Amino acid sequence: MDDALRIVLVSPRNPLNIGAAARAMSNFGFTHLRLVNPYHVAFQEARSAVRSRYILEQAQHFDTLAAAIADCTLVIGTSAVGHRDLHLPLYRLETAAQLVKERLSSSPVALLFGSEKFGLSNDDMSHCHSLLRIPTREEHGSMNLGQAVAICLYELRRDAAAITQRFEPAPHASAEEYERLTLLLLDLLNRSGYVHEGVGKSTELKIRRLVRRLGLPASDTDTWLGILRQVLWKIQQHTHD
Amino acid sequence: MDDALRIVLVSPRNPLNIGAAARAMSNFGFTHLRLVNPYHVAFQEARSAVRSRYILEQAQHFDTLAAAIADCTLVIGTSAVGHRDLHLPLYRLETAAQLVKERLSSSPVALLFGSEKFGLSNDDMSHCHSLLRIPTREEHGSMNLGQAVAICLYELRRDAAAITQRFEPAPHASAEEYERLTLLLLDLLNRSGYVHEGVGKSTELKIRRLVRRLGLPASDTDTWLGILRQVLWKIQQHTHD
Repeated sequence: MDDALRIVLVSPRNPLNIGAAARAMSNFGFTHLRLVNPYHVAFQEARSAVRSRYILEQAQHFDTLAAAIADCTLVIGTSAVGHRDLHLPLYRLETAAQLVKERLSSSPVALLFGSEKFGLSNDDMSHCHSLLRIPTREEHGSMNLGQAVAICLYELRRDAAAITQRFEPAPHASAEEYERLTLLLLDLLNRSGYVHEGVGKSTELKIRRLVRRLGLPASDTDTWLGILRQVLWKIQQHTHD
Repeated sequence: MDDALRIVLVSPRNPLNIGAAARAMSNFGFTHLRLVNPYHVAFQEARSAVRSRYILEQAQHFDTLAAAIADCTLVIGTSAVGHRDLHLPLYRLETAAQLVKERLSSSPVALLFGSEKFGLSNDDMSHCHSLLRIPTREEHGSMNLGQAVAICLYELRRDAAAITQRFEPAPHASAEEYERLTLLLLDLLNRSGYVHEGVGKSTELKIRRLVRRLGLPASDTDTWLGILRQVLWKIQQHTHD
């Protein structure tokens, strides 16, 4: 799939955007950048992060959109606004990405991005099978070109099932650990004068519940016990002075 | 929810990135931009699209990260790499966004982005409840700041169930329409000499199947019939000459 996607920038004007598109492609593992009629200086000045420079070097230039998409069986244009009059299906990115992924498994797909100022022209869109819209606000729909490319590529890589939670959720402390902490804390509260010696049962229960409400990871119990013991020791030392 | 998210840029250096973050926030309808210790010149030079300028104007400045996140009950840092040693949960964006959305319904959440060059420091991360990672390639994980902000906000707005397919899928042509087209095409093929008069039944069936394989929208049938009739008329005219 990675190799079948063509990111096609039509008449890009800003070198920073070309570089940003290349960087996002490298971030998400896509390689085929195609430029239709770019502003000449824009491409010459395009720079990107070191690790995505190979994408700019391999980028292909075309004089016409037709030539840039010739090998693709699905051509989808990006648009910030609807174009009812064009009779083109308009999908939200979430939906369009499913169509793109399905087609990429068998043949090349082109994703078209228009110029920063005007987007895709009606002429460009007449080459498309459908349009996609990133779900921006109606009041401010037009995105920065580099950001739009990045979001589309992220959506293609998105995988809600892939929980790469490299962090192993810490096991919670056991009742025994909570109780050891509770007893030590009660001792400390007594000795520090927070509660008075021979404190009522209700205060003890209150403190027990207070401690139980902590979301205490088992692996942190010893640290907390150590802290309480140290403070207790310090208090006892002063008491013995 | 829209009003409870704080986008916190920690020590941003590049004015273009601050502007890009503001633009993405406007695109996706978030307003609270907070800057911790930005490079002074960077903020003064930050520009954004006209319609997102209000976000830069309302942006709040803080000297410390602690002050910038004080009102938040959930603080999530963005990171391109794992930090096993920090004992912080690390979630993919897809998962982290769910946690953020749930919390936003009741209280403020901070999403932290580090400086372009170094990302978040260990000190910054010690203020976080968890980290999130945009699913970039391991080989080139580090994203452009403006693009990273845009992708996170898109994920928060993402709604797979919202099929804003403003385009009504065109009804397909009926059997009658396909048949009218088939008969007209057969007539044309006869008169143009593509097939010979008194053509065999097998050719007729072949043409009928050929036409049925077109994914013809009902609304386009008249146009196609008109085209065939015009060509037929032209051929007959020449024949009568």
